[in-house]
Amino acid sequence: MDITSDTHSQHISRQFNHELEDLKNHLMAMGGLVEKQVQDAVIALIEGDSSLARQVSDQDRTVNDMQIKIDEECTRVLARRQPAASDLRLVMAVTRAVSDLERIGDEATKIARNALTLSESDNGKKGFVEVRHISERVRNMVRDSLTSFARFDIDLALKVVHEDEAVDSEYTTAMRSLMTFMMEDPRSITSVLSVMWVLRALERIGDHANNLAEYVIYLVKGLDIRHIDPDDLDEEALKQRN
Amino acid sequence: MDITSDTHSQHISRQFNHELEDLKNHLMAMGGLVEKQVQDAVIALIEGDSSLARQVSDQDRTVNDMQIKIDEECTRVLARRQPAASDLRLVMAVTRAVSDLERIGDEATKIARNALTLSESDNGKKGFVEVRHISERVRNMVRDSLTSFARFDIDLALKVVHEDEAVDSEYTTAMRSLMTFMMEDPRSITSVLSVMWVLRALERIGDHANNLAEYVIYLVKGLDIRHIDPDDLDEEALKQRN
Repeated sequence: MDITSDTHSQHISRQFNHELEDLKNHLMAMGGLVEKQVQDAVIALIEGDSSLARQVSDQDRTVNDMQIKIDEECTRVLARRQPAASDLRLVMAVTRAVSDLERIGDEATKIARNALTLSESDNGKKGFVEVRHISERVRNMVRDSLTSFARFDIDLALKVVHEDEAVDSEYTTAMRSLMTFMMEDPRSITSVLSVMWVLRALERIGDHANNLAEYVIYLVKGLDIRHIDPDDLDEEALKQRN
Repeated sequence: MDITSDTHSQHISRQFNHELEDLKNHLMAMGGLVEKQVQDAVIALIEGDSSLARQVSDQDRTVNDMQIKIDEECTRVLARRQPAASDLRLVMAVTRAVSDLERIGDEATKIARNALTLSESDNGKKGFVEVRHISERVRNMVRDSLTSFARFDIDLALKVVHEDEAVDSEYTTAMRSLMTFMMEDPRSITSVLSVMWVLRALERIGDHANNLAEYVIYLVKGLDIRHIDPDDLDEEALKQRN
């Protein structure tokens, strides 16, 4: 047995693991920032805090830079390490996940922009209860999807997928009641529309968290569940797979 | 010189090129289908053709299946061929592009769904002129972005990026005039909102075409221009790069 080469390959593999850990950590850092953006955007809206809203918009550039950097890291790892099997799946999942995180950042920026518009109108906080409620559920989804990614936790990922369905139905109800507001008081149309855009953005954020959760399942199980109806996902079967 | 091994490696490389060509062709087939979906969804809306609208929705499943298949193909090529440099960039660009194409398909489905709602209302075709106009520009963007991908045509890709700016500003104007319609005639709120969702979907389709064009630039130049202001893109400098 060639001990030198063995030590060498152990060294390579240690370094490779280190690179994969780095990738995951950078993804988590980006996720943390994006989660904060969503939270701040909603606070800015509800409290009419326009300086916080501007701060969220300004941070969009940082999020974008993070995406580019992590994508480059992924490409570098693919080129140099030529990973296979689960390592390859990890790199592919990270490159997909950063794209969703970046879009969550975009949606947070849209919320912040509407917060600015609304801070100048006398909307009387119509629809704010719905915004607050849905935003809390969606923020939990983002947090849970990131945690499930960090821990390769399938159960938590599945929880996010199911939660997305519940959020979608709450979103539909909220949109309907906002439409009623508009019809009852046409002078409120402009400001209620802004609240509608906010709800839409929140619903999209939920979709992206759902995507993140699906990547975790792909990562752990090698099973691509995108486009499968959540009701058709047999959790036990999924858990026993592999 | 070992002729046998040389022939063998030529054979491998021919097969690899063949696989990369396949990837591109499958992407183009998916792109063609998605382009058709956008076109049909808008025709269904404008002509009130609900059976065409349902057809668009039904096709969403085919588009989703194509995405999963092409993604698997990409992962397989990465695992088996361990491509480097521009080949690696091609595979990465394809995996990103299918995700945008799939979302274009989703947006087309949303348009079709609104076409169904509108076919049952007496909206009087408010906003249809704007929909028709913006949809034509956006469809051209999708087509051009796909062509630029097929031909690695940087000039065409840059044209798409600039066109996206023009569409965004037209979208904003159209939304404003729809808001005026609503305020003038509150009974039209429900149906005008549907038209607004359609415009929103079209604007998103433009964004995705823009993403596709950016991947082409990344592909050809190794330069990631996502998040760079189009006005800061010096076309000459970009062309002379590499």
